[in-house]
Amino acid sequence: MDHTQARRWLGTAVAEARAGLAEGGIPIGAALYDAHGTVLGRGRNRRVQDGDPSTHAETAAFRAAGRQRSYRGTTMVTTLSPCWYCSGLVRQFGISRVVIGEAVTFRGGHDWLAEHGVEIVLVDDPECVAMMRDFIEDNPALWHEDIGE
Amino acid sequence: MDHTQARRWLGTAVAEARAGLAEGGIPIGAALYDAHGTVLGRGRNRRVQDGDPSTHAETAAFRAAGRQRSYRGTTMVTTLSPCWYCSGLVRQFGISRVVIGEAVTFRGGHDWLAEHGVEIVLVDDPECVAMMRDFIEDNPALWHEDIGE
Repeated sequence: MDHTQARRWLGTAVAEARAGLAEGGIPIGAALYDAHGTVLGRGRNRRVQDGDPSTHAETAAFRAAGRQRSYRGTTMVTTLSPCWYCSGLVRQFGISRVVIGEAVTFRGGHDWLAEHGVEIVLVDDPECVAMMRDFIEDNPALWHEDIGE
Repeated sequence: MDHTQARRWLGTAVAEARAGLAEGGIPIGAALYDAHGTVLGRGRNRRVQDGDPSTHAETAAFRAAGRQRSYRGTTMVTTLSPCWYCSGLVRQFGISRVVIGEAVTFRGGHDWLAEHGVEIVLVDDPECVAMMRDFIEDNPALWHEDIGE
């Protein structure tokens, strides 16, 4: 995948993360793109906003995309390395690629996805790292709750 | 875990699955129990009912339980072997045990969960098998959509 395209797509997820932060939420955003570069769905973590522990950024984007017959050729773009819950989503539904903003503040299941044939593009974006680092420093209990630790 | 208790708890998940079937949905139900045997949340697959591909039975039960500080000692009871998405949920949040109605019509990630320290109780319930077998026979496309195949 072209790096410029990965960064552009990541911008959609970052916008969702920033919106979540502005709402007092956990700043993780995601978007599901189809093979032609169209956004099928986008969303952000909603634990705080909706009191909903099941809505991580990736599941929010997946839900927003509605029912799809196939996820072949789709890309899940997320600001943070996907946790096991979201990695399981990618594997179960056969999402072809995951673009990841950063895996410094949290490392989920993306190596496991790569082993199972999912293309992983790790952007290592400084804004994504800074956003999560600041958030975790200010809200450690909330963050640990979100990843079940 | 006591087998009688496992069967009793499974009854809650089966009631959810039956309700889903009556609504024209995919008949998979689940419930999350705490260590004292209290239901924290229950739910069913809602792909058809809500047009929502992200709500599998286990995620529905998990959402219904609301925000929890810890899942230590909890049990996810489900009528069907959990797919990778729902297995990832169990692993990420540290749910201690999974009670499974059947793994005949579909085999998800429960061996992987066992490898990672989750207690697995497979009930092998004939009603669960029959409900899914009949549903898949009558609705193969819908079923394949639900598991991304």
